[in-house]
Amino acid sequence: MSDLPKRVDIQEEGPREGFQIEPGPIATARKIELIDALTDTGLKKIQVASFVNPKRVPGWADADEVVAGFKRKDGVAHHVLWLNEKGLQRAIQADGLNMFGSISTTTSETFMGMNTNRGFKENVEVQRNQIAMYQQHGIPVTRASIMTAWGCNFEGDVAPTRVVERLEELLAVAEGEGVDIKIISLADTVGWATPHSVKQVVGAVRNRWPEKRICLHLHDTRGCGLANVYSGLEMGVDLYDSSVGGLGGCPFAGHKGAAGNVCTEDMVFMCEEMGIDTGVDLEALIECARLAEDVVGHDLPGKVMRGGALSALRREAKARAASA
Amino acid sequence: MSDLPKRVDIQEEGPREGFQIEPGPIATARKIELIDALTDTGLKKIQVASFVNPKRVPGWADADEVVAGFKRKDGVAHHVLWLNEKGLQRAIQADGLNMFGSISTTTSETFMGMNTNRGFKENVEVQRNQIAMYQQHGIPVTRASIMTAWGCNFEGDVAPTRVVERLEELLAVAEGEGVDIKIISLADTVGWATPHSVKQVVGAVRNRWPEKRICLHLHDTRGCGLANVYSGLEMGVDLYDSSVGGLGGCPFAGHKGAAGNVCTEDMVFMCEEMGIDTGVDLEALIECARLAEDVVGHDLPGKVMRGGALSALRREAKARAASA
Repeated sequence: MSDLPKRVDIQEEGPREGFQIEPGPIATARKIELIDALTDTGLKKIQVASFVNPKRVPGWADADEVVAGFKRKDGVAHHVLWLNEKGLQRAIQADGLNMFGSISTTTSETFMGMNTNRGFKENVEVQRNQIAMYQQHGIPVTRASIMTAWGCNFEGDVAPTRVVERLEELLAVAEGEGVDIKIISLADTVGWATPHSVKQVVGAVRNRWPEKRICLHLHDTRGCGLANVYSGLEMGVDLYDSSVGGLGGCPFAGHKGAAGNVCTEDMVFMCEEMGIDTGVDLEALIECARLAEDVVGHDLPGKVMRGGALSALRREAKARAASA
Repeated sequence: MSDLPKRVDIQEEGPREGFQIEPGPIATARKIELIDALTDTGLKKIQVASFVNPKRVPGWADADEVVAGFKRKDGVAHHVLWLNEKGLQRAIQADGLNMFGSISTTTSETFMGMNTNRGFKENVEVQRNQIAMYQQHGIPVTRASIMTAWGCNFEGDVAPTRVVERLEELLAVAEGEGVDIKIISLADTVGWATPHSVKQVVGAVRNRWPEKRICLHLHDTRGCGLANVYSGLEMGVDLYDSSVGGLGGCPFAGHKGAAGNVCTEDMVFMCEEMGIDTGVDLEALIECARLAEDVVGHDLPGKVMRGGALSALRREAKARAASA
């Protein structure tokens, strides 16, 4: 238990993930309302939109309006997703966005091919060009991500040594361009991780790059989400992606494997109850989760917004004891 | 990681928990259908009904019919809940039920008073009488349970030393009656536990009674259910209560704190993927979870029934690799 970090940083991805997957349109003002509420919870990094092709992602056709409309706040980094130079240019032109560059790979060439129509070899060229593009615009390249780090629906199980090999290739590209990447992000893209395999992969990556910070991007596809977070905490991992309410899961129960990221407020609850500082006001965040349900118009998988925080119960218990 | 047990036993409580909380009537035949399906999954212990006052628990007005109708199977212990001698008599008269006696207490006298209108002192007398009743009928007393072992909505946080003190009193009652109880069941009745506090309470109980087997009865009220199971596994705990599909949660999202037990198939998935034998056929169990949703007529919180097991994906991946 002594390995648990004293503090963790949480990168909120709910708005970007969540509004993309909803089948119906959501009013721009309501998207902004949720982002503004999240901005006041103590979260320090929030991904607020996707600058992608509106024909492919109609849920983000209003990305420019959302980004123009939300409230800026000192100390809170609002950022967006882009997939190509066109998206990057939109982000650069928007006011008050924080720009972080990242490069990524996968453990599975089949998965990469289906997502991007590229193989590993072509991907190296693409990453090199992306870094050049970031450098040209003075954007720091902070993160190297690897998808399907625990398993792939097409290629099956992934050995931790393979994760290290694939990251070695990716980091060599960065190094070749004179970039020292500080954060390695390990993504359980399709929900194959368990607490045991989280330890194995994190351990292998930590041994290879003891100086880099590890981020876990976990999906709750098969219910192990928070257990995997706990396993990461036991390994000292202090950086997590998550989604308020568990936004990003598919609203249709029958749609297999489309579960969202781990739920931010459930993770904050677990951390804070274990004495790990998140810097987040849990009760304010629970209100955001309820707002998110209202905005998308259906239940979300988060639990603590139903069970409630313990702080009020503790206060009442103390008052009861004092008056007894 | 070396402390993880090689095998765990799972005590299924879904039918009893789940049919009790549903607002509408469920046909007796459908209850039996689910119990029969569960009986064929490899689960070794299934709580199938409540012999309680039908005026208080209308969902179990048909308990006698359900118990008369389900299929018996060698090696599967079917048992029921009773709260008094009248219920016990009904269970004795039913055919082919396995009878296990248990005694219980709580950490919180307020909680006990609200549930049973008794204090700790009166409870000792009640437990003594229950043991006498079990002995009279030749029923083994196997389990000492403690509710609110991690916290109480009325009294707040619970120190692990308090759990040990309360169990000492309960076990002394058993000892006084000449009964050596083998299993201590720790219940997180209202969902206050975290992985960290699971370790603290299990550690305190294990230190005091190293020879007894510990069972965890965990509710997923605030999302920590499977994380708490993993923490228990790390402490070597090899006995868990759970509910298929997560049955037992309140179907009304607004109803605070009524989350069900941890979900059986999600727990089986996590264990089996970590190399821990549960003796359960995960794919058959997933079919039971889907059946449970159909029987109760609404979604249940289980995740792996949506994400799917990994075995089929692994088979396809191997076939794809072989044909490449």
